Amino acid sequence: MPSANASRRSQEKPREIMDAAEDYAKERYGVSSMIQSQEKPDRVLVRISDLTVQKAGEVVWVRARVHTSRAKGKQCFLVLRQQQFNVQALVAVGDHASKQMVKFAANINKESIVDVEGVVRKVNQKIGSCTQQDVELHVQKIYVISSAEPRLPLQLDDAVRPEVEGEEEGRATVNQDTRLDNRVIDLRTSTSQAIFRLQSGICHLFRETLTNKGFVEIQTPKIISAASEGGANVFTVSYFKNNAYLAQSPQLYKQMCICADFEKVFCIGPVFRAEDSNTHRHLTEFVGLDIEMAFNYHYHEVVEEIADTLVQIFKGLQKSTPNEKLLGRLVKEKYDTDFYILDKYPLAVRPFYTMPDPRNPKQSNSYDMFMRGEEILSGAQRIHDPQLLTERALHHGIDLEKIKAYIDSFRFGAPPHAGGGIGLERVTMLFLGLHNVRQTSMFPRDPKRLTP
Amino acid sequence: MPSANASRRSQEKPREIMDAAEDYAKERYGVSSMIQSQEKPDRVLVRISDLTVQKAGEVVWVRARVHTSRAKGKQCFLVLRQQQFNVQALVAVGDHASKQMVKFAANINKESIVDVEGVVRKVNQKIGSCTQQDVELHVQKIYVISSAEPRLPLQLDDAVRPEVEGEEEGRATVNQDTRLDNRVIDLRTSTSQAIFRLQSGICHLFRETLTNKGFVEIQTPKIISAASEGGANVFTVSYFKNNAYLAQSPQLYKQMCICADFEKVFCIGPVFRAEDSNTHRHLTEFVGLDIEMAFNYHYHEVVEEIADTLVQIFKGLQKSTPNEKLLGRLVKEKYDTDFYILDKYPLAVRPFYTMPDPRNPKQSNSYDMFMRGEEILSGAQRIHDPQLLTERALHHGIDLEKIKAYIDSFRFGAPPHAGGGIGLERVTMLFLGLHNVRQTSMFPRDPKRLTP
Repeated sequence: MPSANASRRSQEKPREIMDAAEDYAKERYGVSSMIQSQEKPDRVLVRISDLTVQKAGEVVWVRARVHTSRAKGKQCFLVLRQQQFNVQALVAVGDHASKQMVKFAANINKESIVDVEGVVRKVNQKIGSCTQQDVELHVQKIYVISSAEPRLPLQLDDAVRPEVEGEEEGRATVNQDTRLDNRVIDLRTSTSQAIFRLQSGICHLFRETLTNKGFVEIQTPKIISAASEGGANVFTVSYFKNNAYLAQSPQLYKQMCICADFEKVFCIGPVFRAEDSNTHRHLTEFVGLDIEMAFNYHYHEVVEEIADTLVQIFKGLQKSTPNEKLLGRLVKEKYDTDFYILDKYPLAVRPFYTMPDPRNPKQSNSYDMFMRGEEILSGAQRIHDPQLLTERALHHGIDLEKIKAYIDSFRFGAPPHAGGGIGLERVTMLFLGLHNVRQTSMFPRDPKRLTP
Repeated sequence: MPSANASRRSQEKPREIMDAAEDYAKERYGVSSMIQSQEKPDRVLVRISDLTVQKAGEVVWVRARVHTSRAKGKQCFLVLRQQQFNVQALVAVGDHASKQMVKFAANINKESIVDVEGVVRKVNQKIGSCTQQDVELHVQKIYVISSAEPRLPLQLDDAVRPEVEGEEEGRATVNQDTRLDNRVIDLRTSTSQAIFRLQSGICHLFRETLTNKGFVEIQTPKIISAASEGGANVFTVSYFKNNAYLAQSPQLYKQMCICADFEKVFCIGPVFRAEDSNTHRHLTEFVGLDIEMAFNYHYHEVVEEIADTLVQIFKGLQKSTPNEKLLGRLVKEKYDTDFYILDKYPLAVRPFYTMPDPRNPKQSNSYDMFMRGEEILSGAQRIHDPQLLTERALHHGIDLEKIKAYIDSFRFGAPPHAGGGIGLERVTMLFLGLHNVRQTSMFPRDPKRLTP
């Protein structure tokens, strides 16, 4: 690991020493040996987002990626990037940098990680292409910590550009499969960084709101003994000498937790659908955010709790939502989320455990919630009477033996209850006005994609 | 739904009317029709935990389970239970209750859910067997909302009693398989209620601490294309016309998120191990709490963050931990959690992606953390250099083609990083001094158990 400390110099491996005798800066740059926790230097690394005019004149160390580099005579301009933030850095022949050092800097492959020591300088003209517009870094030392290979499979700037817009402007874009094939690089774009920070925020607000309402978080099993919610779209698992299945939702288990007196529960976890659909909104594995709650007399008590939870999430996101600019031009629409609820769906189109309407047997006590005109949550009062549940299961042609444990859960006293579930990737997509659910799944799974 | 409102009386179905002419209380008890959200009465239901001497003299409505009932001449004593709280209720022949009503109350099956209207009365002598020791409820109306079947597969009071202790005292206990076969009832015990509230607290504190430290929550795929961490203990999934596998940990994906510049990430999710081990501490599916973090110069930066996170969780739990009494005699030990860390394990016993020690090639930059003398977390600095990673994978006999996407993630600049993971059920078990991990999994999965 290189530094001004003489004892560490032996580990430096300068890539190129053109003329050692002439290179007065040769200790000031190079490729570091792999950081293997050899030492604990007391060097402080400053965040790029903290590089403002308040730091002008200070000498700082920064670790960042080389986003771009551009040599120009005796100078090399670098853009250094850290997540969504970037700053311009200048290596110029002078007291600190030799011409060899400038050449070295200019030859660092894009996306390599470097440690840079530099002086923060106020600039006269704002640097429009960087998030840190009022300062640049005058480089005194530069060491490569981790080299990127010279040929990137995609350019980050191209990946941020929407395909349609790029075509119109005659500029390069990256198609979605290339982005997903090289997801680790695609996730470095400011757009992806913003999407997944926002998604983390959705989970946080969901849990925070429900915890404040007295809900308990539960963990439900994903490996189940029978295709309990219909056999067509279920994945089969080899389970020792038998077969098992992957849960299509936590539905039956969250209801069993209600029968077990947890009263108000939520869970966040993967759900699996073996559906051979190749569309912009289908995934074979996605993250379900699920709620179930005992109520006193009317399922609208639960509808109100769920609606309030969603509104709290949307409000929270508008405060915490990352800068629109960071999401780039992908997001053209505002975050206005027209939100509405439809109630009383026909019984025939809902799952077997849905409670029929007490007055109209063709209707049910079920509801969907909509954002931007698309359904984001589906829910209902559930049947808590084992006899009616058995009748409805038989009506749907479900093998009672396969749901025995579930039906038995209602035989020893069960409170009336209702709930609902949303898909995390879908809500993120709709909230941001994006057009493909693969953009909001870090490593999406569909019938044709299992890697990376 | 029964109430004093005449319009609703038609829905009441009194179980038994001995002599209607003589039963002056016949409107005051009965079995309700199924709550199907027929109406929205403005009745307020009071929580049992709120029934204290401050409410003495008030008439309240309570919804609760019948925990026990005991008839004695013209009186019937009920214990009404709501989660971990219970209160004594008295139905006595008098102005409000007829002898038929007392008989009706005495015949309600245990675990049935009832709506009770009663007057809160201060008692002269503390009721030691209830959480609400200073008051009882003098019942004026009682309606069964949901009936339990007469024969319970296990008694809650027996399920709380540890097997060894019960045997010594010559009292009934319930063996673990019976408890797990009837998990919905077993989960209603005060012990189970406390265990899973505490577990929910562990997840909450884990996320809260890490979010405050700047970590981002990620979601990693559970269906993967290759048995990337060793083939022996992996479950196979039929994936359309091919095979896929269930992830044995989020390890490779959380590292890929580090390569994608998320810097500090955590995730909570199921992990799957096809290990045919039938012991007190093995499950085939459990919940992993995982951390991964880029560091500057030394992996001890990460060790400190993880250790601090665990300490914050233990401290937080000691504040939020439910009353020891609620956990019953299962927990004999105090919550003192002697916590220590061992560092520098032999390279040979750690996974292929573990960074070797820079000075001793037989050691590695890896660590385990211990509580009560048992390992709860295993972690290490990971190799971030694709060439060394390839060498180590080959050394372990791993098929490089199967981890191509993973190794490729390190080819375009990767920061040094380290992390670790803990098992939620195991930490809950050790923290509470319990002896079987099945007690801390709501619906445990092992080679022989896939239901409920």
